[in-house]
Amino acid sequence: MTEFELSQNAYGKSENRLVRIVRDGDRHDIRDVTVNVRLWGDFEHVYTEGSNHEIPATDTMKNTVFALGKTHFSTGSLEEFGKVLCRHFVETSPRVERARIHLTEHPWKRLPDDYAGSDHTWLRGSSGDHVVWVEGDGESLTVKSGLDDLFVLKSTASGFVGFERTAFTTLAETDDRILATIVTAEWTYADEVEDYQESWDAIRELIIRRFADHYSDSVQQGIYNMGTAVLEARPEVLEVTIELPNKHHLVVDLAPFGIENQNEVFIATKDPYGLITGTVRRKA
Amino acid sequence: MTEFELSQNAYGKSENRLVRIVRDGDRHDIRDVTVNVRLWGDFEHVYTEGSNHEIPATDTMKNTVFALGKTHFSTGSLEEFGKVLCRHFVETSPRVERARIHLTEHPWKRLPDDYAGSDHTWLRGSSGDHVVWVEGDGESLTVKSGLDDLFVLKSTASGFVGFERTAFTTLAETDDRILATIVTAEWTYADEVEDYQESWDAIRELIIRRFADHYSDSVQQGIYNMGTAVLEARPEVLEVTIELPNKHHLVVDLAPFGIENQNEVFIATKDPYGLITGTVRRKA
Amino acid sequence: MTEFELSQNAYGKSENRLVRIVRDGDRHDIRDVTVNVRLWGDFEHVYTEGSNHEIPATDTMKNTVFALGKTHFSTGSLEEFGKVLCRHFVETSPRVERARIHLTEHPWKRLPDDYAGSDHTWLRGSSGDHVVWVEGDGESLTVKSGLDDLFVLKSTASGFVGFERTAFTTLAETDDRILATIVTAEWTYADEVEDYQESWDAIRELIIRRFADHYSDSVQQGIYNMGTAVLEARPEVLEVTIELPNKHHLVVDLAPFGIENQNEVFIATKDPYGLITGTVRRKA
Amino acid sequence: MTEFELSQNAYGKSENRLVRIVRDGDRHDIRDVTVNVRLWGDFEHVYTEGSNHEIPATDTMKNTVFALGKTHFSTGSLEEFGKVLCRHFVETSPRVERARIHLTEHPWKRLPDDYAGSDHTWLRGSSGDHVVWVEGDGESLTVKSGLDDLFVLKSTASGFVGFERTAFTTLAETDDRILATIVTAEWTYADEVEDYQESWDAIRELIIRRFADHYSDSVQQGIYNMGTAVLEARPEVLEVTIELPNKHHLVVDLAPFGIENQNEVFIATKDPYGLITGTVRRKA
Repeated sequence: MTEFELSQNAYGKSENRLVRIVRDGDRHDIRDVTVNVRLWGDFEHVYTEGSNHEIPATDTMKNTVFALGKTHFSTGSLEEFGKVLCRHFVETSPRVERARIHLTEHPWKRLPDDYAGSDHTWLRGSSGDHVVWVEGDGESLTVKSGLDDLFVLKSTASGFVGFERTAFTTLAETDDRILATIVTAEWTYADEVEDYQESWDAIRELIIRRFADHYSDSVQQGIYNMGTAVLEARPEVLEVTIELPNKHHLVVDLAPFGIENQNEVFIATKDPYGLITGTVRRKA
Repeated sequence: MTEFELSQNAYGKSENRLVRIVRDGDRHDIRDVTVNVRLWGDFEHVYTEGSNHEIPATDTMKNTVFALGKTHFSTGSLEEFGKVLCRHFVETSPRVERARIHLTEHPWKRLPDDYAGSDHTWLRGSSGDHVVWVEGDGESLTVKSGLDDLFVLKSTASGFVGFERTAFTTLAETDDRILATIVTAEWTYADEVEDYQESWDAIRELIIRRFADHYSDSVQQGIYNMGTAVLEARPEVLEVTIELPNKHHLVVDLAPFGIENQNEVFIATKDPYGLITGTVRRKA
Repeated sequence: MTEFELSQNAYGKSENRLVRIVRDGDRHDIRDVTVNVRLWGDFEHVYTEGSNHEIPATDTMKNTVFALGKTHFSTGSLEEFGKVLCRHFVETSPRVERARIHLTEHPWKRLPDDYAGSDHTWLRGSSGDHVVWVEGDGESLTVKSGLDDLFVLKSTASGFVGFERTAFTTLAETDDRILATIVTAEWTYADEVEDYQESWDAIRELIIRRFADHYSDSVQQGIYNMGTAVLEARPEVLEVTIELPNKHHLVVDLAPFGIENQNEVFIATKDPYGLITGTVRRKA
Repeated sequence: MTEFELSQNAYGKSENRLVRIVRDGDRHDIRDVTVNVRLWGDFEHVYTEGSNHEIPATDTMKNTVFALGKTHFSTGSLEEFGKVLCRHFVETSPRVERARIHLTEHPWKRLPDDYAGSDHTWLRGSSGDHVVWVEGDGESLTVKSGLDDLFVLKSTASGFVGFERTAFTTLAETDDRILATIVTAEWTYADEVEDYQESWDAIRELIIRRFADHYSDSVQQGIYNMGTAVLEARPEVLEVTIELPNKHHLVVDLAPFGIENQNEVFIATKDPYGLITGTVRRKA
């Protein structure tokens, strides 16, 4: 008899790259989605006994994503498709107790109408990926939405002063710097949502507007301002978590060359970088 | 006396990440550029004798990119900035015989005017990077321009039939497939160019239009069509080379699940991939 | 008065790339480490009031990593250096309540002794990165160690049979396949550890041995076998979590070419991929 | 009649990820190779007429790599397999005039013999990839070999002094710095080679030894020293081209913290970076 136990287990299929063309007439639509599936359940025997009894193969998960991609996903919301997938796994396999579906939609932008072929041709966009998590156990289902890879930059109206100075502090204060970041956000819903895509579009716009519209005293302040802007305008949102890497742009010292640099020439650096996160929610 | 010789040498500084903010009044402009410098010259002694006599340090090249980025680069064309850098290296260092400057401009899109802060806030774009090569030896200077990372997809109006069938051929013919590619193009100029940026914008649009506007018999045909479209409309272009990876989207076989898939559900694959190139030029 | 609140916040400096050369005499040692710092504390005012009062700048964190890298890190364990950093942040800044240090050591292999210059020359290794998490609040301190990026492959002695078959299952059973994975593992300690590096080396070897030494009925089984092997041999380990991506190698169908392929020719694919995890621990 | 012409064309299949298991008895061998195929030929009609007459599909190239991977590749040299592929494409398809095969072998290291399962289990290595180019037109065939991704570092015995100082030079001279680089090399052969793998192993070792065994006055000097070492010891090599990025490790200034840093603490940076190349050959 072993003195060890399996205290946690999960498995799934990642990076299912589903492209769905909706061909109702000549004007097509495209959905380009990466789907990750993860399942929890009564699978201890697979780990401890070398038996695969009643365990769904990850290859089956892949097939399921593509099959249900045909039957249950066209122009509807990513969130609803996630619900369909989540329910399917929990309901189909007796030993599956919980499923989590993570979806990322990659943006494509249709060519303008005056381009021949615009009915079926797109240019890859970069306005931020739409991400969704759906998790369910057969009884309840929770949906989170978010955005990822939204790269924004402001060339002024940002500073950082008054911070702690210790023996290891060398950073100069500044009231004029570049602030650049790649926004990652996720939020939960307080209410049922009629139109997830409309909600997502509005939240994305609010975040961009709030990034731009005020003087930034710190990255932290930007997170709070973005979060409260979302909560104020969108009653369906319960709480929002935002993570902002500080994509540093360092002022280049041109003084050795007799050249003045009044925040005009910067070197973009990759590492190290600051990483700031915060969650803003409605008070209970 | 050695029986060996140095038959070729070159060196430089890569990935100089220059961000230039143009601050004439409250409305800023941004230029976000990666600059690679490569020099050729009379530097055999550095290789063979361990002497660094009169060799420019790559660190000096970096400084030069940022210093001249302040004094000679603002809202003008990337090509003209490349010329300034190229001339500088050839003229400044007596042993430098030839310089090649490669510049890539990363696109930023200003926020719409009705966004507070739009004077100084941008969203990262993805409409294709503008690339430039300038090469010179102190007497002549050649400029090539190009675009990179332009990701386009059409969901129909593409096929591939009538190709060679050998013992190793299994590919089925199709007259309806997804065609997706990331366009890389570069072109040389026949004439002096007044406004490089206007030329680049027009060429980029021509390439996108031509990708979309006809039924594609092959990726090769698309290259020829794009190339001739550029040459027809833009007299300043002498020849254009285009390279297109075939970003395969494979139709998923849903028949085992009793589901019909009429080119609606695809799996996007990364490798292996077809890679097609061609150069189209004016006849002499 | 706002109806919103900041329910969670954290921040830090990521990707501090510290290289430490230990120069005691002619024979040098090298430590090549990426350090991520994350702090939690009483910083709500930074988010909500635009005040940076008593907040450590992430730039100061960077300086700290390099300064303490000189004074407190040489040939000792990565875990002990993590403890020093963790304690420093909690003790130095009055508002910091909790710190988490994540360290990854990149392996270098000294040249053999019969190579001139072996005292100070190394070749980059790839036997798996050593990773460490240290987290503390000024009172208690927890240490987790792990390994990452350990890529192993077996060309046989692996199968997958007897799994669930549903309407979406097409996968054939097999008792002979390639099993390839990149092991990620992390473990907690039951006891004080005298020599973390000795422990890490031994655990890494146990995991590799266990991957190789038995017929694999599933990836899950491999996780359990690895985990119990570690717990059996290493009393200092309390529990171990292992995550294994299934780096699929698909048998290529050569039958159309009249060629038999008895598990000799495979195509390595990147996506989609199975991802399996489990935690094994001592029973209470 | 068009005034334009196709002046150059080529196409092929990239990233064919072939894994070949040699199963002669219980002790297996593994070959893990990425193969890129590129063809030139009489294919102008494909570009200009939309006809695919007699053009090999890139999918057929993929099939060919895997089929010939079974019949003509086991424990023999990568170069000989490249020759087989090259000849096949030129001889099989009437319109193919020239083929270039590029192969990269990814290193796997068998587990030590005292590990159960070592007959069929490997750990991914990182001692430098073996790369090969074979190009032929049906009459002649040229073979180049090379290595890639060989990451080496020396913590001293490297300096850089006496370089050009201009108005834009700020770099300090040093006679003690870290020199780190990822070696890329390629070479052509003067003679027929009996055992390509033996030759490759020896050249790789020579390059590593030469990197380590002398004081480096510059990266350039290292290239020359490596190149001549190869030519001196290996009569089968005609010329060798080496490219070395300078993976900068910058000394961190700890003086503000009252800490002396005698080349002990460095920050590893990614960009910008120096890039140096040179070719050394036998005199005619």
